[in-house]
Amino acid sequence: MRRRVKELPLTGLAERIRSGGIGSAEATDVYLERIERLDGRLRSFITVTAEIAREQARAADEVLARGETLGPLHGLPVAVKDNIDTGGVRTTAGSAFFAARVPERDAEVARRLREAGAVLLGKANLHELAYGGTTQNPHHGLCRNPWNLERIPGGSSGGSGAAVAAGLCAAALGTDTGGSVRIPAALNGVSALRPTNGRISMRGVFPITWTFDTVGPLARAVADVALVFSVLPGFDPEDTGSHDRPVDDVLVQLEQGLEGLRIGVPRSFFFEEVDEDVARSARAAGELMAARGADVEEIELPGAERAEEATRRMILAEAYAIHRRRLAEQPELFGEDVRRRLALGAEVSGAEYAEHRQWAREWRRTLDRVFERVDLILTPAAGQAAPLAAESETIETTRRLTRLTYGWTLAGLPALAVPCGFDGAGLPIGLQLAAAPFREATLLRAGAAYQRETDWHLRQPALDASERVKVG
Amino acid sequence: MRRRVKELPLTGLAERIRSGGIGSAEATDVYLERIERLDGRLRSFITVTAEIAREQARAADEVLARGETLGPLHGLPVAVKDNIDTGGVRTTAGSAFFAARVPERDAEVARRLREAGAVLLGKANLHELAYGGTTQNPHHGLCRNPWNLERIPGGSSGGSGAAVAAGLCAAALGTDTGGSVRIPAALNGVSALRPTNGRISMRGVFPITWTFDTVGPLARAVADVALVFSVLPGFDPEDTGSHDRPVDDVLVQLEQGLEGLRIGVPRSFFFEEVDEDVARSARAAGELMAARGADVEEIELPGAERAEEATRRMILAEAYAIHRRRLAEQPELFGEDVRRRLALGAEVSGAEYAEHRQWAREWRRTLDRVFERVDLILTPAAGQAAPLAAESETIETTRRLTRLTYGWTLAGLPALAVPCGFDGAGLPIGLQLAAAPFREATLLRAGAAYQRETDWHLRQPALDASERVKVG
Repeated sequence: MRRRVKELPLTGLAERIRSGGIGSAEATDVYLERIERLDGRLRSFITVTAEIAREQARAADEVLARGETLGPLHGLPVAVKDNIDTGGVRTTAGSAFFAARVPERDAEVARRLREAGAVLLGKANLHELAYGGTTQNPHHGLCRNPWNLERIPGGSSGGSGAAVAAGLCAAALGTDTGGSVRIPAALNGVSALRPTNGRISMRGVFPITWTFDTVGPLARAVADVALVFSVLPGFDPEDTGSHDRPVDDVLVQLEQGLEGLRIGVPRSFFFEEVDEDVARSARAAGELMAARGADVEEIELPGAERAEEATRRMILAEAYAIHRRRLAEQPELFGEDVRRRLALGAEVSGAEYAEHRQWAREWRRTLDRVFERVDLILTPAAGQAAPLAAESETIETTRRLTRLTYGWTLAGLPALAVPCGFDGAGLPIGLQLAAAPFREATLLRAGAAYQRETDWHLRQPALDASERVKVG
Repeated sequence: MRRRVKELPLTGLAERIRSGGIGSAEATDVYLERIERLDGRLRSFITVTAEIAREQARAADEVLARGETLGPLHGLPVAVKDNIDTGGVRTTAGSAFFAARVPERDAEVARRLREAGAVLLGKANLHELAYGGTTQNPHHGLCRNPWNLERIPGGSSGGSGAAVAAGLCAAALGTDTGGSVRIPAALNGVSALRPTNGRISMRGVFPITWTFDTVGPLARAVADVALVFSVLPGFDPEDTGSHDRPVDDVLVQLEQGLEGLRIGVPRSFFFEEVDEDVARSARAAGELMAARGADVEEIELPGAERAEEATRRMILAEAYAIHRRRLAEQPELFGEDVRRRLALGAEVSGAEYAEHRQWAREWRRTLDRVFERVDLILTPAAGQAAPLAAESETIETTRRLTRLTYGWTLAGLPALAVPCGFDGAGLPIGLQLAAAPFREATLLRAGAAYQRETDWHLRQPALDASERVKVG
């Protein structure tokens, strides 16, 4: 029998499992042991599905022993954000309303993960109802940042980001409405993709809006993000927002490098009201890309500020529409911050919503023109590193953290977050790349090329050392 | 010199002019004479551009004399609804706010008409700001129905419909938000096409909504509607709703007949709350199509009622958004009915609008599935023939008249109205055909085939006989 694995590679685990280098059951045990040892402090999981995981892993290893594989994610232990339905496994949406809810069927993305061979370690913590950027969840745990337990992991997919960064899973699914995979990726020093709206089915994912919600993968390396992403897309006639678009061969394009890519860096807004360390790291990433053959130029992006405002107000209206009955009937079941934020949505008029929507069409046309000249737009992902939990307040902190992500949400564009440095306090900094609709392959190609030249995504939080840090 | 033409053919005039059978100047003179003689009672024009028309017609005849033509509409005298900008010609939008407004540039559709060789007879009357279905315009004239001057022509393109029916132009442009070319076509016994949303540029057309407005042609015969339509489409990067879709060869398909077309007739809603004569005429049209080789079947169309409601509420919100500043600052410049209707839009919340919008996506998916089984959906265009002006009230009459047209608006689908009979009082009845997005060619093909078998579109109102009817 093989010697028991104690440490797993930070990237490329799927390939190692598929090739028989590491057993899925071994990998699963390592993650489960780490979850048990570390997640009491992190609170990145709401539900750990140890038994299911061990059984799926064992089954994967058996299949491999017969010389077969289940799929591209064969035996890969992953976490799934808890607003994504998992058949037979409690799915709370981070809410008290659904604290005991066990869906019968998988969400379409969960089904696809399973079909691709992934092993479910558990359900990741999130901001209550995915409606905020701090993941200080009053019902299911105050999730913390593995780089510093006094800080938040961002959100709403805070559990997914923290779990990946802490080495509690190989990859995770999150959801991104206004920045909910990009922000946690930035704050936890991992990579994440928000796909084009409609690219991945939202069936069985609890909505916070009807217009902007997407599902996206998180992992340390862009190559692993790309691998998970590759199994998720597909037209779903049951999802009214689903697009019937072919998927490029994402994994083949990963190898193509930066040569010839045209990258635009916005002159204004995206580098304003941004911490110095953040702006410097993002600009340095652009310079590195230029040095590796990308054609990097400054661009104008008029309207970015209004895009942020329009997104914020449309999200307010839609979230209120989705929850207003619950808000009227059982307001006490909401956390105070989410209740207050939901109520703000009642103030958005139909005329205002329609105006923002019309303006969104103009913004999209502005971006269409920009993307005739460049392949990617490079900005920071968040204007700052992880805030202190004690100084975070959902509405204000979320607003600050999503300032640079909302614009792509409004236009329905894909965007990638990758680690690009650390600030003076040793906290990760995230870069954001955005592309034209359905150009995820270009984003992933650029991100992977950048990570072949950098090791930001390979640094690890000293979690064991911080074991004695007091968490409030 | 050729003998002066006194009467023009009801259909196919463009071909007659292009082939030299009738001079454009002659045709123009006939129309101008009829306008002068009859339009005092009809009020179908807000502005008659006699000089421009004569000059354009003379120029067209000169070009033809040299053996050339200007385009598919060479020398064809047309009317243009007065919410469509015409460079150098007053464009009022039927409003007191713009009573003296002379735009510098043509709307994109007016430019295309001009480029195709059309002659501009004048600007057609409309419901104030295109916001209603009666065209009883308090600022620019109470437009009446040529079949009975005590009755309304429908709206909002009431002037366009009345002018075509009365033989005051060969064809006209209207605009259709919730039914504004289809209703006047039905009530005046002419044909009209609402194109797919985004098919034709809205640049330079005064909006009543951002989401649902379209430009569509009216003429007696579908073949003439098709000819005018054929010059209008094209991607416009300046119009945020414009689609970049190739246009089928509409005119070639016109000849293909009904053979093999699958036509669905909804079992419910569209034949409920509908006058008996109307339902009978529409069903008879379906039977005739079946007898000529179409495959006609009953279909289920769940949600039609909710579609009507969603459209109505979204239009209210958008129209209010567009006019709320004017409403606050100069309410007295609006007609009483439009002011009241606009104010209703303030009551639609952002949450409600977003809900309707989400439901619209589901409705569109329902229709996508229906259009996998049928090519066309056949319904009446309006539930009744032209109402009496004295009994019409904008909000209530518009609501009644648009009941069967709103559903296609919400889904952004193309729809064609064609005359299909007369009621007991001798008033025209309209049929409506709807198709999947960008399938205008199929609609026009079916309509043209139907008109080769019927002569409803060739009947004429006895306008001269009604000269002594007193109009209040």
